[in-house]
Amino acid sequence: MALLLEGGTVITQDAQRRALRGSVRVEGARIVAVGDVRRERGDEVLDCTGKLVLPGFVNLHTHSPMTLLRGYGDDLLLEDWLQRRIWPAEAKLTAELTRAGADLALLEMLLSGTTSFADMYFFTDSIAQASLAAGMRCWAGFPLLDFGTPECPPEQMVPRCEDFVKRWLGHPLVTPVVAPHATYTCGPGTLQQAARISRQHNVLLHTHCSETRGEVYDVQAKHGARPVEQLARNGCLTERTLLAHCGWLTKEEVRSIARAGAGVAHCPVSNLKLATGGTMPLPELLAAGTRVGLGTDGAASNNTLDVVETMKLTALLHKHHRWDPTAIPAQVALDLATRGGADALGRSDLGRLEPGAQADIVVLDAQAARMQPMHDPVSQLVYAARGTDVETVLVQGKVVVRDRIPLTLDAPRVLQRARDAAHRLVS
Amino acid sequence: MALLLEGGTVITQDAQRRALRGSVRVEGARIVAVGDVRRERGDEVLDCTGKLVLPGFVNLHTHSPMTLLRGYGDDLLLEDWLQRRIWPAEAKLTAELTRAGADLALLEMLLSGTTSFADMYFFTDSIAQASLAAGMRCWAGFPLLDFGTPECPPEQMVPRCEDFVKRWLGHPLVTPVVAPHATYTCGPGTLQQAARISRQHNVLLHTHCSETRGEVYDVQAKHGARPVEQLARNGCLTERTLLAHCGWLTKEEVRSIARAGAGVAHCPVSNLKLATGGTMPLPELLAAGTRVGLGTDGAASNNTLDVVETMKLTALLHKHHRWDPTAIPAQVALDLATRGGADALGRSDLGRLEPGAQADIVVLDAQAARMQPMHDPVSQLVYAARGTDVETVLVQGKVVVRDRIPLTLDAPRVLQRARDAAHRLVS
Repeated sequence: MALLLEGGTVITQDAQRRALRGSVRVEGARIVAVGDVRRERGDEVLDCTGKLVLPGFVNLHTHSPMTLLRGYGDDLLLEDWLQRRIWPAEAKLTAELTRAGADLALLEMLLSGTTSFADMYFFTDSIAQASLAAGMRCWAGFPLLDFGTPECPPEQMVPRCEDFVKRWLGHPLVTPVVAPHATYTCGPGTLQQAARISRQHNVLLHTHCSETRGEVYDVQAKHGARPVEQLARNGCLTERTLLAHCGWLTKEEVRSIARAGAGVAHCPVSNLKLATGGTMPLPELLAAGTRVGLGTDGAASNNTLDVVETMKLTALLHKHHRWDPTAIPAQVALDLATRGGADALGRSDLGRLEPGAQADIVVLDAQAARMQPMHDPVSQLVYAARGTDVETVLVQGKVVVRDRIPLTLDAPRVLQRARDAAHRLVS
Repeated sequence: MALLLEGGTVITQDAQRRALRGSVRVEGARIVAVGDVRRERGDEVLDCTGKLVLPGFVNLHTHSPMTLLRGYGDDLLLEDWLQRRIWPAEAKLTAELTRAGADLALLEMLLSGTTSFADMYFFTDSIAQASLAAGMRCWAGFPLLDFGTPECPPEQMVPRCEDFVKRWLGHPLVTPVVAPHATYTCGPGTLQQAARISRQHNVLLHTHCSETRGEVYDVQAKHGARPVEQLARNGCLTERTLLAHCGWLTKEEVRSIARAGAGVAHCPVSNLKLATGGTMPLPELLAAGTRVGLGTDGAASNNTLDVVETMKLTALLHKHHRWDPTAIPAQVALDLATRGGADALGRSDLGRLEPGAQADIVVLDAQAARMQPMHDPVSQLVYAARGTDVETVLVQGKVVVRDRIPLTLDAPRVLQRARDAAHRLVS
């Protein structure tokens, strides 16, 4: 049996026409037809009249359980924020509390149209299990840090990471990822182990890179190389690498990332909120052919997991930074949030509405006053839409949100458990 | 009879405690008690359990009918945008089309919690009438430009402006404003007439000021003075002045604005989208004691009229600009969007929840996944809330939106008329 999303404005993302009036047919987990598609006998039909039909968003960098610390310590200097707020709270984490935070994040992300996310956090199995239960695609990063994590002491980290990777390899929804935290928290030994796991099991290596000036300075002072070079020296800059932030890149580093074929996650909301100062050279990275997507970062530094918001800020920030209103037009921002993120994850079958692609689809209400009139659907999506306009969400052909109601998560229960968990962390 | 907004988290904006659990009692148009208020016999009660209760937002600079051109010509250079898109469309404007655009703007603003707005656009009577019908507070700016407007030729502009001002003076909801467009579109003669009308009738003078580098350069070249000085020379810089944008101010201009006692409307979303380049010296203006509020600008350059979005970008932009996460904390952003805007309009009885203030009140749902947990209500409001979280809105003690349903506007009819009007403008 097929599902027909009928009669909407389909965001096709092709160069000639940005959108078309038409339908999308889904069979099983896949899209089989887009455009002028007729209803067939036995089709389940979802009426999309007056709505936008688009690919699910890819959140390319987040720390999902940090929803528990949303708004806990805003507007502080980075050191105060980490030392007085975040680290003391994180020290109390357990697998159960992590799950409560991940569930809250999944609820928020699904309701705002995100269908895939690249995560990095402790108690990674809890996050993977939560994603599986919610029916959402997760690239679950197992973090490595020289000084250990609340989940495991330094000496157990690499074997447990490798064990995690082996257990989840090949799963259709949860993809294991090795996640050395950053070059200022991982010495060469840790980086080399991460590189080995990534190479040996052919899994993504997700790391923070050049987020702050201080980090670049410290890594240069300690290792005689800036973060990009330090990653490269230790085998961590390959086509399996995903670099988050990249706010302080040189032109040579842009070329080096492009040569290696690494992907990049742009997190402008977090960068502005934490005042990291640097503006990622997004046009240069795109011109160099680098695969770039958008990330929200964790909710403690954003404070939402809303890719729709991030799309708009991406377009705004780069126009502002270059005094050029033609920089990062709406179409580019939308592409980054969907196919760009998917490509950075090595998945050309996600993030687009095409025959053969996975049926990760968002149906978005376009009848709010804010969304009318509709001179240009792509402009509206990027500059006027809100995550709250998302009505229905499919992942892998399954409806996970229908008419703003989550079907795979018990919202009141998720909210109550998250409140309880947050209370335990900060009290 | 009184209305009791009972049992919410009340955003008090006082220095000691940012919010309290309590209630707000409204009698007629005014707030009479805030905090530990008991229910009395005959009270109408609005249950606010689990919700935030805050002052209605003030949108301090917009061009409401431009909703009709939302998304029409995004991502273009300013010249192309104005000459190929905006001006040809505006030339077709009529009072009827303007009303359709204003109604759409009012619907959008009320639904996202804005209760007062300072406007500037042609067919100003249509906008004033629309606001009156919607039950929203409008500072209706009658525009003056040397080359005339679609509404009237140059020679009729000043008398018609003065006539407009006289007719609306003293109205409780609609306040007339004289609005010389800018120093690059109004010569000394027009500015002096505007200054005279403002002085003679004691009305606000609303103008664009130092939005772009090009404007500052051109005005300096033509008049031998930068825009702030050019306004001052012609009597247009007083405590009745409202300056929009101010992206390219010198330190001397900051002092000059403060000395004059003028108010300023900060429009960061529009400034970034149009890539005007300059960042308003907001901390300096505040330190100098200037009354500053937030504006969305028109929907053609934003593309929403959502003050909640503008609050967040205000905090983010200044942190980023100064590499300082403590710049413009959440409390300041919220204050700008409410009492700051009200003060800039000369109305200390708006924009705050205090006994004696006008009952312009927003009740905001705080149960979305994105809004939980609630470590700090003010942080949540600025960094996580969306305009779509607004549930109920009061203006002057009257409920104009209840449970997200507009009571003073017929939403489907407003949407259809706006679509039709937009079609006529661009076809």
